[in-house]
Amino acid sequence: MKSFRKTLTIHTRQTTAFVNVTREVQAAIDESGVREGLVLVNSMHITSSIFINDDESGLHHDFAKWLEELAPHDPSPTAYHHHQTGEDNADAHLKRQIMGREVVCAITAGKLDFGPWEQIFYGEFDGKRDKRVLIKIIGE
Amino acid sequence: MKSFRKTLTIHTRQTTAFVNVTREVQAAIDESGVREGLVLVNSMHITSSIFINDDESGLHHDFAKWLEELAPHDPSPTAYHHHQTGEDNADAHLKRQIMGREVVCAITAGKLDFGPWEQIFYGEFDGKRDKRVLIKIIGE
Amino acid sequence: MKSFRKTLTIHTRQTTAFVNVTREVQAAIDESGVREGLVLVNSMHITSSIFINDDESGLHHDFAKWLEELAPHDPSPTAYHHHQTGEDNADAHLKRQIMGREVVCAITAGKLDFGPWEQIFYGEFDGKRDKRVLIKIIGE
Repeated sequence: MKSFRKTLTIHTRQTTAFVNVTREVQAAIDESGVREGLVLVNSMHITSSIFINDDESGLHHDFAKWLEELAPHDPSPTAYHHHQTGEDNADAHLKRQIMGREVVCAITAGKLDFGPWEQIFYGEFDGKRDKRVLIKIIGE
Repeated sequence: MKSFRKTLTIHTRQTTAFVNVTREVQAAIDESGVREGLVLVNSMHITSSIFINDDESGLHHDFAKWLEELAPHDPSPTAYHHHQTGEDNADAHLKRQIMGREVVCAITAGKLDFGPWEQIFYGEFDGKRDKRVLIKIIGE
Repeated sequence: MKSFRKTLTIHTRQTTAFVNVTREVQAAIDESGVREGLVLVNSMHITSSIFINDDESGLHHDFAKWLEELAPHDPSPTAYHHHQTGEDNADAHLKRQIMGREVVCAITAGKLDFGPWEQIFYGEFDGKRDKRVLIKIIGE
């Protein structure tokens, strides 16, 4: 069994942003030499997500609006109990639960084994600083 | 390390539907010969889900109603930015994020290592056409 | 390839509760002898979750309140179709979908390969009885 590890660093200019990392994940698979196996891709932070959906900017706009309705940003100290610690980003912790922390993808014949529209995204809900994404590959 | 890959094709008569695929996943494990390992089951589409919950039709009715409240279907061009591309299914992309893309399950002694009520479902939110589910197994 | 399996039993005094199981998962990795691989941690029940987020009690309070807004507990027979079976916990099945069933984590050099704030939680939405968590490790 082979294993391979790599991290990506992502820094978004906006608080909320979606970044396509599919190419970087495939590059890590290429580098690993794994032909058959699994790749785990996860955010190493708790206010951002890794998820798979469509690479369409209108849909990303819809995601952001919808998440804001489900878990509104409100930095006031009384909006969320979490803010009593001095934080102002409780909404980002909630949004990340909707979108998920990680994806696990199949590797078949050295490639991401994907349907026609599947693309891997980093979803940021508390951006403007360096964040890391972990790629871990196991297989043969 | 062994690896094994199989796809299922699912075509639902309704836009929203839940299909139990537990038997098909166990059959793939049997076919793979893997006794100890992991099985990844994921939708290869971005408007449907794989998830684990109860095989109870009343609960599935509750899921559909609840998802419709959280992310209403509205095919009008102005309801979602995604519809400016000509699509009318943005709600299905949102619903799939709530329910998830994939499950990873343990294989122990050749069987799905499940609690008493765990069953694997395909959740369709934009049906009436062929969709594929990927099963990828690794282990020994 | 090595594989290792262990279950934890969790019994919460409250209906809704969050229990940090990170130490138990690391202990299982230590016991397995796996240095490079993946660990799957999942609830074996369909009214509870495993998820990764912050170990901060204020945030956990926010999670509970938010989930109650998104999927309210209402034991009346007409509140949810699922209750026609005699059950009164449909809300717990819904809440678990938001928070997720499982996490898959990387093991690197024998340790959970985590960002600075990542902690693994068992999220209970229908407690006051014994529940089980499955830990399955594969690697080398």
